[in-house]
Amino acid sequence: MEPKLPEAWILSIGNELLIGRTVNTNASWLGKRLTVMGFNVRRIVVVPDDIEEIADEIRRALGRARLIVTTGGLGPTHDDVTLAAVGRALGREMEVNDEALRMLKDHYDRRGLPLTEHRIKMAVMPQGAKILKNSAGSAPGCLLREGETVIVSLPGVPREMEAMFEEVVPLIRQMAPEREAIECASRIRGVPESTLAPLMERLAKERTSSYLKSHPLGFEQGVPVLDVKVLSFGADRQEAEREAREILTQVLKEVETRGGQHFGIHCS
Amino acid sequence: MEPKLPEAWILSIGNELLIGRTVNTNASWLGKRLTVMGFNVRRIVVVPDDIEEIADEIRRALGRARLIVTTGGLGPTHDDVTLAAVGRALGREMEVNDEALRMLKDHYDRRGLPLTEHRIKMAVMPQGAKILKNSAGSAPGCLLREGETVIVSLPGVPREMEAMFEEVVPLIRQMAPEREAIECASRIRGVPESTLAPLMERLAKERTSSYLKSHPLGFEQGVPVLDVKVLSFGADRQEAEREAREILTQVLKEVETRGGQHFGIHCS
Repeated sequence: MEPKLPEAWILSIGNELLIGRTVNTNASWLGKRLTVMGFNVRRIVVVPDDIEEIADEIRRALGRARLIVTTGGLGPTHDDVTLAAVGRALGREMEVNDEALRMLKDHYDRRGLPLTEHRIKMAVMPQGAKILKNSAGSAPGCLLREGETVIVSLPGVPREMEAMFEEVVPLIRQMAPEREAIECASRIRGVPESTLAPLMERLAKERTSSYLKSHPLGFEQGVPVLDVKVLSFGADRQEAEREAREILTQVLKEVETRGGQHFGIHCS
Repeated sequence: MEPKLPEAWILSIGNELLIGRTVNTNASWLGKRLTVMGFNVRRIVVVPDDIEEIADEIRRALGRARLIVTTGGLGPTHDDVTLAAVGRALGREMEVNDEALRMLKDHYDRRGLPLTEHRIKMAVMPQGAKILKNSAGSAPGCLLREGETVIVSLPGVPREMEAMFEEVVPLIRQMAPEREAIECASRIRGVPESTLAPLMERLAKERTSSYLKSHPLGFEQGVPVLDVKVLSFGADRQEAEREAREILTQVLKEVETRGGQHFGIHCS
């Protein structure tokens, strides 16, 4: 953990995530991107489509995060209440945003469809919203600033969310020190996780810009198998890879001392 | 939403989830199981491996949830601090649990390995813990009662988590009304999501024991394609399916009126 990095919180909105109908791949996609961009991702909170509960979570995040990213709840349906909740949490009036309305009008004009009440709803934004274009769907997103904190609201459809995030990148890049990240891993046989624990503990304390993790994979013919993974950061890729390899080399030396096998270091 | 159902909160513990290295499939698996068991899953919170932050989230959940399920952070390594955090949140002393210690001793005896300090750590539980056996790995889980609330701590490895959850089911079954669930879906062409929004809104208000959701899939040759999904509950499967089909039938009638196409109702 690097406490000096700005905190990012991800709020994933939608009942379908809570009832297990949808796996929250948006949060892991964003977690990875934000981490590499230099943010310290400290919470992912999945909230139901309930305006007051979403507003509560945004208020809570405002006390801690420099960056809050919401996904989901921007569409035309009754349960799309994210922006109303953001407005409520920030104490901002909601208004039909001209730019968002123009985008929606263009979108539906091209398809020969009128701007109904439900379509206009997608242009209702908290005051002060900077509009984010949805190049892969209809509902626009938005970015708001509240004191030191930036709140970004993205759609829930992964394709739309990912496309819109690329628009956000230049707007938040200066908030955090950009880094390169690399993950290196080794598969280990014959040494249990708990045997490596003391060394892993020491390395985690020494190497604060890396994440060490062992993943037990079970037993093959009574012999424990595990992956040790190291995610390291650096100003460039080489620096990150050097750090990760140094850490894993120490782990593999211990594995050899304990009579285990390993299959080298693989980086991606 | 059925406000009468007991609330369940899921706390997913682990930096690897926050940095996007791991997709949180445990939470969606649990969300689905708990929903069908009659719980109202209201939050999934992903928390870093930090004892004070985990304890904070548990304290917060205690104010709302009848059931709190944690996953991850039970292992032998330095960053496995879930049970210490549960103990701190509940104000309970930590102690070496005899039953857990016996399980761990058996586990390592069978593999010809000694009980090291790091392995004994996995037997240190908050006072009053009911031990849950890990049939697919080493770290035991536990169940604690605090007033009206049950707190269940499961491992983070999906295979181990799923196996241990089966042990938990009989212990929490009486907390919620068991239901059968069914999901039915229709693929629709030629009617945009926003055209269906008013009907979907009305149906969602009328049919409170079902979850309706439209998922825009984009455009094929300029024509919008979407899936409408309905998750319904009932005392038995037939009752649930009848409810879901009634709702979807109304949606498909609207689709026909609007000149769209559909491909029937599929239930799973």
